[in-house]
Amino acid sequence: SSSESSSPVQPGASSRSPGYETLVVTSEGDITKIMFNRPTKKNAVNTQMYHELMLALKTASEDDSILTVVTGDGDYYSSGNDLTNFTDVHSGGLEEKAKSSVTLLRNFVNCFIDFPKPLVAAVNGPAVGIAVTLLGLFDVVYASDKATFHTPFSQLGLIPEGCSSYTFPKIMGTAKAAEVLIFGKKLTAAEACARGLVTEVFPDSTFQREVWTRLKTYAKLPKNAMRVSKELLRNLEREKLHAVNEEECRAIQGRWMSDESLNAVASFLSRQESL
Amino acid sequence: SSSESSSPVQPGASSRSPGYETLVVTSEGDITKIMFNRPTKKNAVNTQMYHELMLALKTASEDDSILTVVTGDGDYYSSGNDLTNFTDVHSGGLEEKAKSSVTLLRNFVNCFIDFPKPLVAAVNGPAVGIAVTLLGLFDVVYASDKATFHTPFSQLGLIPEGCSSYTFPKIMGTAKAAEVLIFGKKLTAAEACARGLVTEVFPDSTFQREVWTRLKTYAKLPKNAMRVSKELLRNLEREKLHAVNEEECRAIQGRWMSDESLNAVASFLSRQESL
Amino acid sequence: SSSESSSPVQPGASSRSPGYETLVVTSEGDITKIMFNRPTKKNAVNTQMYHELMLALKTASEDDSILTVVTGDGDYYSSGNDLTNFTDVHSGGLEEKAKSSVTLLRNFVNCFIDFPKPLVAAVNGPAVGIAVTLLGLFDVVYASDKATFHTPFSQLGLIPEGCSSYTFPKIMGTAKAAEVLIFGKKLTAAEACARGLVTEVFPDSTFQREVWTRLKTYAKLPKNAMRVSKELLRNLEREKLHAVNEEECRAIQGRWMSDESLNAVASFLSRQESL
Repeated sequence: SSSESSSPVQPGASSRSPGYETLVVTSEGDITKIMFNRPTKKNAVNTQMYHELMLALKTASEDDSILTVVTGDGDYYSSGNDLTNFTDVHSGGLEEKAKSSVTLLRNFVNCFIDFPKPLVAAVNGPAVGIAVTLLGLFDVVYASDKATFHTPFSQLGLIPEGCSSYTFPKIMGTAKAAEVLIFGKKLTAAEACARGLVTEVFPDSTFQREVWTRLKTYAKLPKNAMRVSKELLRNLEREKLHAVNEEECRAIQGRWMSDESLNAVASFLSRQESL
Repeated sequence: SSSESSSPVQPGASSRSPGYETLVVTSEGDITKIMFNRPTKKNAVNTQMYHELMLALKTASEDDSILTVVTGDGDYYSSGNDLTNFTDVHSGGLEEKAKSSVTLLRNFVNCFIDFPKPLVAAVNGPAVGIAVTLLGLFDVVYASDKATFHTPFSQLGLIPEGCSSYTFPKIMGTAKAAEVLIFGKKLTAAEACARGLVTEVFPDSTFQREVWTRLKTYAKLPKNAMRVSKELLRNLEREKLHAVNEEECRAIQGRWMSDESLNAVASFLSRQESL
Repeated sequence: SSSESSSPVQPGASSRSPGYETLVVTSEGDITKIMFNRPTKKNAVNTQMYHELMLALKTASEDDSILTVVTGDGDYYSSGNDLTNFTDVHSGGLEEKAKSSVTLLRNFVNCFIDFPKPLVAAVNGPAVGIAVTLLGLFDVVYASDKATFHTPFSQLGLIPEGCSSYTFPKIMGTAKAAEVLIFGKKLTAAEACARGLVTEVFPDSTFQREVWTRLKTYAKLPKNAMRVSKELLRNLEREKLHAVNEEECRAIQGRWMSDESLNAVASFLSRQESL
């Protein structure tokens, strides 16, 4: 029952999980909040953050919470994959690096596919790359009107991941999805909402208050019913999503070793440094 | 030919099918209209109505009509499953009741999956629960601007049915569908239309006139072409829909016997009685 | 590399491919433009144009271009299948004609399913029938606000093709798709955009300028990345699309030989002649 599962904290109190550097993970009532915590890096996802996110999701899937919320600290939700990940090539060389990166990516995306509880994104600001594509695997996506959604894969010689080659056409239709995934069109929050990627947009000034009021109400609903509903919906495409993730990762490994991508990423990073 | 299939009634005349208590079934021109007829109960679907609806759909699938329209009498379209169905537990006890209810539900939903002619919903007012989820199996859904769409499954410890765990994410994308199906967010007619669940919304004052003018025009189109088109579209997902219906029914049986649901439904009914 | 693939023309220069009568096919920079060229016939697709379009798509798939754009000359995008195709019945008679027409249709649609590069439609004006349904197989669809989208299949005793029985419900949901495909509801550009069939609508006065500015920018993106992205998205449903095309063609053959269709088409053509 829900009374058995309440944690021994005071009402309204929030407990912070120790051991995370790139995230702040807190529990309040029946909600686990996972917050990206590299605000000075626009919450870019470096290798450490990939690992910590997988740990935080695994822990949240097993704790007493009813809902899990992912959000960002500071102005950005997340600027996506930290491109300096690419420059950290060790003795094994480029091919070894690409292989291990793809393994990490595959496992990371699988954590979202298989997350067993309702998963909510509170997109507080701009989202880029994998921070956008993964939204197709969330159950509900609330966005501030300051949020934007940008997937410049082609610009970097890369291709879509996070199952977006499947989820985005399903959500918004091919004609809207391909413009975003192939041509890298950036969407406003309103556009992302009209296309179905975002559930609802709130004014930035009231975003936190409105979202958390709503989530606290939802967290009071019967826990098992919500979990069975989530399982019912996800089971209908779990197998497909895993197959898509495999297929995307297979293709990405080739892209990461391509001249197109190596040149585009190097050019991007040198522009960043010169700012 | 269409002249062979016209019934021997005067133009504009309407004939009422005998033998229904919870429905009013009429034929006018080439349109069969099935109207929920429990207005004092907000057209809640009790066991008798489930059986009469199955009979009415079977009859309409075999009569000379070209279109079939489902609508409600009074202010409501339908408040969904009549929850007093749950309290009618006979000697066999709860498990027996849950089993027979699930069999009824499965057969009922199958009638909508397999209905062979264009099926139109004229949603004249609020729709709740299964009256909403089934809309995903209609070909066209017209709504009054007084209609609302509410699926409070979790609130009752229950889960989605009517193939909505498949049709709703397909229609509106996961981020919009899960808010409705898992969190029970109520939609206005305009919201349901923007999400694709509703084809078009009309002002309540002109709803009946505009919808019936349009339907009478459509009913004059070549009959076999429309039937083959409907078959073509439905065949692409008939097998999937049956599998989803099975899966939902399997999960629902467990929910109906759960403490969460028994408590939530009892609480709902006692609140209703005290009104 | 992209420098290897640039053609030996001056920047901004455009070269016209010889040998087409019903199309104008030009290459400029990295874009191949295929323009319907029967403006006095509202760009209706006659048998010759079906064959020339297949040739143009095959050629574009193998040339050095990065993007391929399909558009129409004059006021119309295309009024769809030229119904005089139906009246051109030779000695083999009706059944032979239906068979050969279905073979042509199947092969024609397959060219769109299997086109390997990003494919963009610039819908400059009204689109009818197969000119509409095929849009579900394009990657991006830009439309002038003077464009309309009309699929009067039932009106002609016919049924949907171009994989629209699959793509349209996926893009816009059943309730919106069936009104268009079964009842022949005509959509404005804004409606088609809200339903996801169209990516974006531009004012007619600036349509050409805005679309081509955007396409020229997109054509500068890394070529292989875009091609792999397109392949990734299309491979997820290529098999399904071919199966749908088969199924539609099988059903269409029956319709073309039906009294409903023969009468409706004859009636349409005689009304056209009397104008």
